[in-house]
Amino acid sequence: MQEGLFIDGDRMKADFDALSRIGSTGDGGVHRPTFSDAHLQARRWFLEVAAQSGFETRVDPAGNHSAVLTMPAATRTLLIGSHLDSVPKGGRFDGALGVVAALEVLRSVQDAQLELPVSLEAIDLTDEEGTLVGRLGSAALAGTLRPQDLENPRCGRENLKTALQRAGLSEAGLLSARRDPAQLAGYLEMHIEQGPRLARNGKDIGIVTGIVGIASYQVMFHGEANHAGTTPMQARCDAGLGASSFVVAAHQLVRNRYPDSVVNFGRAEFDSGAYNIIPAHALLHFQFRSPDESNFVRLDAELRAEAEKAARQFGLRVELHPGPKWNPVKMTPEVQAAFEQAADSLDLSHERMHSGGGHDADKLVRVTRAGMIFIPSPNSVSHDPREYSEWKDCENGANVLLRAAVEVANSSH
Amino acid sequence: MQEGLFIDGDRMKADFDALSRIGSTGDGGVHRPTFSDAHLQARRWFLEVAAQSGFETRVDPAGNHSAVLTMPAATRTLLIGSHLDSVPKGGRFDGALGVVAALEVLRSVQDAQLELPVSLEAIDLTDEEGTLVGRLGSAALAGTLRPQDLENPRCGRENLKTALQRAGLSEAGLLSARRDPAQLAGYLEMHIEQGPRLARNGKDIGIVTGIVGIASYQVMFHGEANHAGTTPMQARCDAGLGASSFVVAAHQLVRNRYPDSVVNFGRAEFDSGAYNIIPAHALLHFQFRSPDESNFVRLDAELRAEAEKAARQFGLRVELHPGPKWNPVKMTPEVQAAFEQAADSLDLSHERMHSGGGHDADKLVRVTRAGMIFIPSPNSVSHDPREYSEWKDCENGANVLLRAAVEVANSSH
Repeated sequence: MQEGLFIDGDRMKADFDALSRIGSTGDGGVHRPTFSDAHLQARRWFLEVAAQSGFETRVDPAGNHSAVLTMPAATRTLLIGSHLDSVPKGGRFDGALGVVAALEVLRSVQDAQLELPVSLEAIDLTDEEGTLVGRLGSAALAGTLRPQDLENPRCGRENLKTALQRAGLSEAGLLSARRDPAQLAGYLEMHIEQGPRLARNGKDIGIVTGIVGIASYQVMFHGEANHAGTTPMQARCDAGLGASSFVVAAHQLVRNRYPDSVVNFGRAEFDSGAYNIIPAHALLHFQFRSPDESNFVRLDAELRAEAEKAARQFGLRVELHPGPKWNPVKMTPEVQAAFEQAADSLDLSHERMHSGGGHDADKLVRVTRAGMIFIPSPNSVSHDPREYSEWKDCENGANVLLRAAVEVANSSH
Repeated sequence: MQEGLFIDGDRMKADFDALSRIGSTGDGGVHRPTFSDAHLQARRWFLEVAAQSGFETRVDPAGNHSAVLTMPAATRTLLIGSHLDSVPKGGRFDGALGVVAALEVLRSVQDAQLELPVSLEAIDLTDEEGTLVGRLGSAALAGTLRPQDLENPRCGRENLKTALQRAGLSEAGLLSARRDPAQLAGYLEMHIEQGPRLARNGKDIGIVTGIVGIASYQVMFHGEANHAGTTPMQARCDAGLGASSFVVAAHQLVRNRYPDSVVNFGRAEFDSGAYNIIPAHALLHFQFRSPDESNFVRLDAELRAEAEKAARQFGLRVELHPGPKWNPVKMTPEVQAAFEQAADSLDLSHERMHSGGGHDADKLVRVTRAGMIFIPSPNSVSHDPREYSEWKDCENGANVLLRAAVEVANSSH
């Protein structure tokens, strides 16, 4: 480890503050959905600062924006990055902090005149949050983006077309943006935790071991409408009761038997039209996440079985419509080790944890060594203007990112 | 009991069929909301048939339509009736059957040239189903209608005004329609069961012992929105989970500890806006019914306690907004006995049961002797075009109604 190597906290803070003003919502948050005016302005700002710092700048056919510190002898490049887009009315840390930290890593390496066997590339990946598709730039870069991903995008087909046009991009470009994995030395990202664990445990740094798998379902229970005053409790086919029982059973299942997993029912709806009519239909939307491949598969089957069980118990029919599904992935062990060594060299406390949210590293670990660190989110609020991290923690994270980047770069051969 | 006394089933069937055509929905049902064209037409039909049968006809200031078989020596009147309004797109039996049976009772007594100590009045009570207010004509007649019942009617204030105007009625009239209880000898009604019990138990006649109390609540659970991927299960304040748990717990409470009561959640709604956001708010509408006064009060308190318990368990706040409430009432024992004797005299099997639905007898028993019988609803469907009873059961019910009416009339002194 480079004992004397540190980022310049004031310089990074100036960048972070400048970026927080672009698309500011006035209450601490930013509104920078993919290819909105504010988002495009943030990306221009990134290239300008990169150029002023003496870095080569690049924009690939997926719209990924890069600042490159080229090493003379390098044939490969270590990517360090995150994203400048935000959810609508989101926080100013999510993504943006990782981009300014990546830029600061490049400047610190440049200032220290380190010679590394690979080039360093600070990268702002396109549409991580999914205003359009979700992790679009990283999928394109990894070469895992498929034409059908663009056919039914989350934002709707027409919105995608219009948005791409605004940004001067094309679908053909997106589908051709794959980078040869042989030219990649890895991908590192620093991000806010977006959860309470680090703050609660008093740790400085979270070493991400993997990213959860995510699957979602729409569920419809079908029963029979009937008069709730004259129909005995035992003679009912109450879709609302089946749905409610499934919600409770799914929570119990996850709490009791899948402590590393989560389940959430974001939506429930039944309305028989009157207080005295038994609901014939009940709709649920739920999502579950698990960091472990075998648990992910087992939990999927068990949740489906719980829905069927609730239907049987209350004389209902149930339909399960699966939504998008992403399998869990593990971060590269040697990258995790590099982050840990870097944290130790800085006397920062750390713990291993999985990421409960999706990130670009999910796409990139499929083609190159990849890893992430988290810094504490003391109020655990994210995707909201109240999103907050202590600046000291941001600096700590950037220093870990810097030292790990040097380590990973030096271990590239 | 009058051993040789029977109604004329064919005559009653002709009436029933004529009435089923007024407001017919073409699929076995009728659409006769209060003061709709079809409803007003049905009421005109009733007065015409009554007049053709030689009865005096009356319309009171609450719009209640009556056919009266006057007895020379009588100072009091025994009411026999039901209602000609229907729920929107309802069945052809609910209410209408009781009105044609009442008319048939009067004709049968007239044909038999019976002399009774009280007059008989077949009555079509206004707005039983509550398109406007609910049991409006019976409350007005009983003198329990209060001005505030007309201030916030179920249908909305303006709709009530317009509807009254259509029918040539006024609020002042409604509030003055009280009949002196000293002039009433009782109220008898025959109705379809609207539930499965008689058919399941193979009984011809249900002797109604009382009408359930009914209370309803709107419930709001308030928790905290948060990211469902990064917030541990234990750290959540999930309003949807609290609501679902309350639904399940309320059902368990009623099934396990209140076997004569029912509870129904007609509506539930929570929508965090995304699969991965924990719902901050959840709405429920529920209603419960109990035939017993002390159970009704205890169940009310226990259901409220269950809602509070679910809130505490999941770190939520809960608001309970009470809706309308009607206490349970008992039917007059001597009327129940008269119905039983009548059924026995006809060799019809019968059982005592409470009514799970509200009926006009609820209002009238507060001022006079009142009772009801049910006939089987084999498919247990009601308030729906599929509502159905066997014609033989309709005739049986009308014969019981006839003989009990004579008995109650003769016991009036």
